[in-house]
Amino acid sequence: MKPAVKVTITGAAGHIGYALVFRVASGAMFGQKQPVILRLLEIPQSMSSLSGVGMELEDCAFPLLHDIVLTDDPAIGFRDTDYAILIGAKPRSKGMERKDLITENAKIFSAQGKSINRYASEYVRVLVVGNPANTNALIASANAPDLERNQFTAMTRLDHNRALGQLANKTNSLVADINRMTIWGNHSMTQYPHIDNCTVNGFSVFDLVSRDWAIDHFIPRIQRRGAEIINARGLSSAASAADAVVDHVHDWALGTRDGDWISMAVPSDGGYGIEEGVVFSYPVTCKDGEYEIVKGLELDELSISRLKASEKELREERAIIEDLLPKG
Amino acid sequence: MKPAVKVTITGAAGHIGYALVFRVASGAMFGQKQPVILRLLEIPQSMSSLSGVGMELEDCAFPLLHDIVLTDDPAIGFRDTDYAILIGAKPRSKGMERKDLITENAKIFSAQGKSINRYASEYVRVLVVGNPANTNALIASANAPDLERNQFTAMTRLDHNRALGQLANKTNSLVADINRMTIWGNHSMTQYPHIDNCTVNGFSVFDLVSRDWAIDHFIPRIQRRGAEIINARGLSSAASAADAVVDHVHDWALGTRDGDWISMAVPSDGGYGIEEGVVFSYPVTCKDGEYEIVKGLELDELSISRLKASEKELREERAIIEDLLPKG
Repeated sequence: MKPAVKVTITGAAGHIGYALVFRVASGAMFGQKQPVILRLLEIPQSMSSLSGVGMELEDCAFPLLHDIVLTDDPAIGFRDTDYAILIGAKPRSKGMERKDLITENAKIFSAQGKSINRYASEYVRVLVVGNPANTNALIASANAPDLERNQFTAMTRLDHNRALGQLANKTNSLVADINRMTIWGNHSMTQYPHIDNCTVNGFSVFDLVSRDWAIDHFIPRIQRRGAEIINARGLSSAASAADAVVDHVHDWALGTRDGDWISMAVPSDGGYGIEEGVVFSYPVTCKDGEYEIVKGLELDELSISRLKASEKELREERAIIEDLLPKG
Repeated sequence: MKPAVKVTITGAAGHIGYALVFRVASGAMFGQKQPVILRLLEIPQSMSSLSGVGMELEDCAFPLLHDIVLTDDPAIGFRDTDYAILIGAKPRSKGMERKDLITENAKIFSAQGKSINRYASEYVRVLVVGNPANTNALIASANAPDLERNQFTAMTRLDHNRALGQLANKTNSLVADINRMTIWGNHSMTQYPHIDNCTVNGFSVFDLVSRDWAIDHFIPRIQRRGAEIINARGLSSAASAADAVVDHVHDWALGTRDGDWISMAVPSDGGYGIEEGVVFSYPVTCKDGEYEIVKGLELDELSISRLKASEKELREERAIIEDLLPKG
């Protein structure tokens, strides 16, 4: 049997964490032949609740789960880890300004970047889920000078999957029959869900839906889907966010389907005119544990302006936490 | 591609339901080549919350999920269904006596038995999770005269998996290396977790643990594990219960491992001296969608007395709802 993969999850006692850890332990993330070790990291005041999660994991008798570590110490949680999934973040409290939210989280994620740099495997792959995810990933990466920038990503896979679901509904098709969905930009209201390259059962998407539908209905619905879920459930998305984590890491580790791509927020290489370094969602393909940004897609003027608007927001977020970025 | 399996889940907006539906849709229950249709059945006052669950299922873009039906109408929820997973039940409220709890649930599950008899596939398989699970399964079955009794089961797989987890911990082994764990009796404090037939890596269990440990520590801990989880989490077991549902149905549909067995509460065939008809947890093997009670195991006097005590409780539960059982 293969050696176990070590997976660290922060905020593991929260709603998304609770929906995630059982799926990772069941083999959904790395397949049915890959044992896993879970390192669950929480803040001290959540350790009692986390102990219950640990007991329930034991109670599932997952054949692939070779060890469970529960800790509030980053030195233990990140030690030699292969994958760091950073969910725990400070939520926006009532009356808090966006600037303060970004600054508070920048402190958390710069500390985690330092811990990952110091303790994790040199090949660690990092996925940031806690918001503002793109800028949190930027800060974590900037504080991990011994690691490559492309080891740090943020999650737009939930937006990507939401877009697949809506397009499948609209075209009365199965999600498995849709290829080349793209989410560009920031995981925020400025994200740009983009269907122009999509095929449905091999047909061009615009044989089946109109550009007006995309602009007037599809794009705003994906951008506001989080609020729609909160209205219905009274709680924010948890299981669907956890599922997107499974998909993001699964595809990064094991590869994307031939002829298809996925959306991941990754440090820009300057592609599509986006400033190098900001963490921006692109269409990517993955193979052998590495992602590659899809090149050469044509963008019309509307698309370029949407990408620029999201880039602008990301530059503004970066400006807010500029003081916390290491010089150099 | 195979035709989709229709799976009806009651109480789908509750904690266990929320932990379950995404795993079923992901392919964990029937494998990665079997499409599924989910029929989620709730009480009218939970339909708004259920609509949020439905949206999140869409948002996961599960390739195997071919349709989602959300309803509070049993005629729609159970129509032609292949699997009915009955989670929704009346919980014990403050000051409620056990007798009242059993009677209230007997009303719910007799109605569901009638609906399943009328609307479901003639080959439907039923798993009762809502407590008191064994007696609820008995009532549902008694109200479904056109179906076979062995189409109705209740869940003791969570107890079984908890027992595997504890024995793996104690013997410092992997759960995959343990065979032939058994839970006998009622899914209640009178259940009898029984390790005498277990092997660990091929060794007899008593080469590794003592009978005293089993009696003084292991058995009471499994019996009281639910309360232990509530103390730690402040909430009852949800993800681990959902995982046990996945395992129970998976193994019933696709078969148990060679040389191993699982625990399922099924209508007694009189085996091991248990009165015919009461729904009692036995060791069973499964093949081609049918279960078979393991025969010929030797039981010592202690074990026989434990089985009898649990049978007595099940007879008492049945006596409480005798009036609701159809004559015949």
